[in-house]
Amino acid sequence: MFEAAELGHKLSKGEYKRIEPKLRADLLDAQFDLSKNGAFPVVILISGVRGAGKGETVNLLNEWMDPRHIHAFAFDNPSDEERERPAMWRYWRALPPKGRIGILFGSWYTAPIIDRVFKRTSGKDLIRSIDEINHFERMLADEGALILKFWFHLSKKRQKKRLRALESDPKTSWRITKRDWDFFELYDRFYRISEETLRRTSSAAAPWIVVEGSDAEYRAVTVGKVLLEALRKRLALKKERRVPKSQAAPIVKPVDRVNMLARMDLELALDRKIYAKKVEKLQSRLALATRHPKFARHDVVCVFEGMDAAGKGGAIRRVTAAVDARLYHTIPVAAPTDEERAQPYLWRFWRHVPRKGRITIYDRSWYGRVLVERIEGFCSEADWMRAYAEINDFEEQLAANGAVVLKFWLQISKEEQLRRFKEREATRFKRFKITAEDWRNREKWSAYQEAAADMIERTSTDRAPWTLIEANDKYHARVKVLSTLVQAIESALGKSW
Amino acid sequence: MFEAAELGHKLSKGEYKRIEPKLRADLLDAQFDLSKNGAFPVVILISGVRGAGKGETVNLLNEWMDPRHIHAFAFDNPSDEERERPAMWRYWRALPPKGRIGILFGSWYTAPIIDRVFKRTSGKDLIRSIDEINHFERMLADEGALILKFWFHLSKKRQKKRLRALESDPKTSWRITKRDWDFFELYDRFYRISEETLRRTSSAAAPWIVVEGSDAEYRAVTVGKVLLEALRKRLALKKERRVPKSQAAPIVKPVDRVNMLARMDLELALDRKIYAKKVEKLQSRLALATRHPKFARHDVVCVFEGMDAAGKGGAIRRVTAAVDARLYHTIPVAAPTDEERAQPYLWRFWRHVPRKGRITIYDRSWYGRVLVERIEGFCSEADWMRAYAEINDFEEQLAANGAVVLKFWLQISKEEQLRRFKEREATRFKRFKITAEDWRNREKWSAYQEAAADMIERTSTDRAPWTLIEANDKYHARVKVLSTLVQAIESALGKSW
Repeated sequence: MFEAAELGHKLSKGEYKRIEPKLRADLLDAQFDLSKNGAFPVVILISGVRGAGKGETVNLLNEWMDPRHIHAFAFDNPSDEERERPAMWRYWRALPPKGRIGILFGSWYTAPIIDRVFKRTSGKDLIRSIDEINHFERMLADEGALILKFWFHLSKKRQKKRLRALESDPKTSWRITKRDWDFFELYDRFYRISEETLRRTSSAAAPWIVVEGSDAEYRAVTVGKVLLEALRKRLALKKERRVPKSQAAPIVKPVDRVNMLARMDLELALDRKIYAKKVEKLQSRLALATRHPKFARHDVVCVFEGMDAAGKGGAIRRVTAAVDARLYHTIPVAAPTDEERAQPYLWRFWRHVPRKGRITIYDRSWYGRVLVERIEGFCSEADWMRAYAEINDFEEQLAANGAVVLKFWLQISKEEQLRRFKEREATRFKRFKITAEDWRNREKWSAYQEAAADMIERTSTDRAPWTLIEANDKYHARVKVLSTLVQAIESALGKSW
Repeated sequence: MFEAAELGHKLSKGEYKRIEPKLRADLLDAQFDLSKNGAFPVVILISGVRGAGKGETVNLLNEWMDPRHIHAFAFDNPSDEERERPAMWRYWRALPPKGRIGILFGSWYTAPIIDRVFKRTSGKDLIRSIDEINHFERMLADEGALILKFWFHLSKKRQKKRLRALESDPKTSWRITKRDWDFFELYDRFYRISEETLRRTSSAAAPWIVVEGSDAEYRAVTVGKVLLEALRKRLALKKERRVPKSQAAPIVKPVDRVNMLARMDLELALDRKIYAKKVEKLQSRLALATRHPKFARHDVVCVFEGMDAAGKGGAIRRVTAAVDARLYHTIPVAAPTDEERAQPYLWRFWRHVPRKGRITIYDRSWYGRVLVERIEGFCSEADWMRAYAEINDFEEQLAANGAVVLKFWLQISKEEQLRRFKEREATRFKRFKITAEDWRNREKWSAYQEAAADMIERTSTDRAPWTLIEANDKYHARVKVLSTLVQAIESALGKSW
C-alpha cells in the first residue's frame, strides 16, 4: 500500500496558491452544511510515521475550516481513569457528536501496531486486534459516522532526512529524542506490520488513505480534497439513505414456537422464612466480597431485563442493600438525553462503565435495541440485527478488561403480570409504577417473548452469560439473582480471598 | 456545636421498628415527587469522624429510597485528570442534576479541615477556604439546590471504643489501620478545627446537621427525618418561589452615561502590511511558547465576548492558527443541552476547563449570564446580580490553579456593525453569519453596552483581567488580541523559557 506514497509526490507553490483559496472556501461551506443539518459525525484518524506532517496538516485543516466545530484529540498515555476501563473507553469519550468533526491522533491503531513492532504481542494478537477494530468501525459506519483514516507515509530515506532536519533546527530539536531514533531502527518492521494492518482494515465504510508526507503542499491539498469529496458525497445523499445498512440475515423462528423461555419452570418458589434466611446469608457474603481489599482490582457490570412488573427493581434493591453505596451506581435506562442521541446507541452505556472496584447496575440496558426498538420499529431490521454482534463485542471488551459481566432475564407468566398490574393499580403507593404504556406493551407480549428468546440465544456468551430467572415467585427470583452474583464475584476474587 | 451530640442519644429497637416503615414509605414518596417534577437537585454531604456510621447510614438511605435516583460518590485521592484542574472540578463533575439526589462522602470540606489538622496550612488558609466554600454553597443554593450537610460525631471516648470494636471483629478489622489511630491521637485538634469550620459554614441555605453517631437506630432516623422534612418543605413551595433569591443591590448608572466603552478610541487602525508582519511574528512566538516543554505545566482559558460581528471568530482563528490543534479546544457557546440545563449555569463551562498543557477558548461564555440573559430577562435581576461574584469566584479558582485567564471584549461602533451586517448579507459566503436575531439584538445596542460596561467594571480582576479591544479595525483588533495573549503566556512561562 505504501509504494505509491514513495514516488516523491509534490505540488508547486504556484499550484498550491491557485488551488488553496477555493478548496478552503468549499471546505468551509461543506462544514457549515454539516453543522447545520447535524445528520452525522465525521471521524478522522491521523496516523503514520514520525515527521510526515501529521500535526501540520491537521493544523491547516483547522485553519481552513471553522475550528469551533472541530475537536482534535491526542492520545498519549492513558490517564488513570482511562487505564481502569477497557482500552476503547477513551475513544468512545472522544467521539464527535452528529454535525461535528473529530480528529483523532494516535487512535485505536497505535497500541496494536506498536506492541507488535516491539514484540510485546504475537502475530495472532495483532489479528485479533484487527478483527476487533473492523467490528468497531463497521458499527460506527452503520451508526452513520463518516470515517476517514489518513496514513502519513515517508520512505525510509526521507524519514531519516526529516528527523535530521527537525533535530538540527533549534526551534524543533527538542521534538526529536533518542526514542525516535530507536524507533527509526525498526523502520522495516514497522513498515511491514503497519502495511498489513492497513490492508486488513481498509473497507468501503472506513477506508485508509495513504498520503505521502514529504511535501507540505501536496499532503495538505490531498487531505483537503479527500475530505471535501467525502463530505459532499455524504451530504448529497437523502437523509434516509445516508446510513449504509448491513444486510439483515433472517431470523429463523422455531416452527413449534417452543423456545427456552417457554420451557422455564415458573412454578419454582421459596417459602418466606427460608427466603429471609437465604437472603441474609447471601447479602452478608456479598457485603464481605465487595468490601474485600482484593475487590479493588475487579469491576462488575450487571444488567437487569424482563417484562414490566417482572420484579427488576425489587431484585436490584436486594443487591444494593448489601453493597456499600460508595461502590455502585444504578443506571435506570430512560429516554436518551440530546447529548446521547447525537452518538451511536452504545455511547450512553459506555459512559457509565465502572472503574475498578466499582459496580454498575443497568436497570434495562443496551438490550433495548433488540427488544423495544425492534418491536416498536424505532430502528430498522438491519439495525437491530447487527446489534447482536455489536453487543457481544461490547461485553467481550468489558470481560477482557476483567469485569464480571452478568445479565439477568426475569421471566414471569402473562397471568402473573396481569395480577401484578392490578395489584399496583390498587395500591396508592405503587400506582406510579403502572402506566398506559405498560398496558400497551402487554398487548405485544408474544412479540416481546420472541425478541427476548432471540436475544438470549444470540448474546449469551461464555464471558457474559444470561441467567434466566424464574420470577413468578419474587422470593425465588431474588435469591437466584443474589446467589448467581455472589458466586460470580467470589470466583473472580479467586479461591484464597 | 458538638456538645449536644455527646449526650448518648439513642432509640430503642422497638421505637425504631415502629417509626421505620412509615418514614421509609414517606421518603420514597417524596423522592418520587422529586424525580417526577425534577425541579431541583438535592446535594447531601456526609462528613464527620471515623467510625460514626456514615457509610451505614447512607446505605440505609439507599435501601429506603429508590437507589436508581441516588448517586453516591466517594472522594478519596483525586485521579490525575482531577489533579490537573482546580480542586472543585471533581465536585462539579459529581453534582446531581435536577430531580436527583447526590450523596457526597468526603466533600469540599475534607481537604481544608485535614490540611489544617496536620498543620499543612495556616489558620488564615482555613479562613480563606471557608470563605470560598460559603460562596460556592450560596451559589448552589441560589441555583436552586437543596443542600443538607450531615456531620457524624462521636465523643472521644466513644470513638476509641468504636475503633477498638471494628478492629477486634475479624470481618471489619482490615478497615482500621495505623493511620486511623494516628489520626485519633489528634482528636482534640480535629474537634476544635472542625467545630470552627462547621460554625462558619452553617447557613440557612446550607445548614449543618450534627448527628450523634453512636446509636445506629438514632442516627438513621435522625437523618431520615431531616431529609424528609427538607424535601417536603421544598416540594411544597410553588415552583417560582423555590429558589431563595439573594437581595439584589441596585446598579448605579453614571448620570453622564459615560463609561469606559464609550471612551475607547475606535479609530485605532493598522496598515495591512504592518499587520501581516506583526501577526506573523506574534504567531511564531505563540507557536514556540505553546510548544515549549514548560508549557505542559500551565493551562490557558480565553474568553471572547463582543457585539455581533465584532470579529470574535476572526480573532480566534488568528490565535488557533498558531497553536497545535492537539493543544486547544474551542467551545462555541450555543443553547445548553438538556444535561446542561439540569445543572447550575456555570456547570457547562466547568466541564470544559482544560487540563495542564491545554488551552480552552470560549467563543462567548459564562458572561452570557450578565449580558444576554440580563437583557432578555432569561433570569431575574437577583440572578444576574449575584453572577458577578460567582464568576469572579470561578475565575479566581482557575487562576489559583495556575491557569492564564484572559478575557477579551471586542468593541465596535454601531455604524461599523451596520456596515458589517450589510456586507455579510451581500456575500454569499458569509450570509449564514447574519440572522434575524442579530438585527433584533442590534435594536438593544445601548442596553448591551450598558450591561457590558457593568460586566467589565465588576469582573475585571488582577488575576483575570478584561482586555478591551478596539475592533472597528480588524487588523488592530487581531494584533492586540494576539500580543496580549502571547505576553501573558510568555510571562507565565517565566523569564528563562
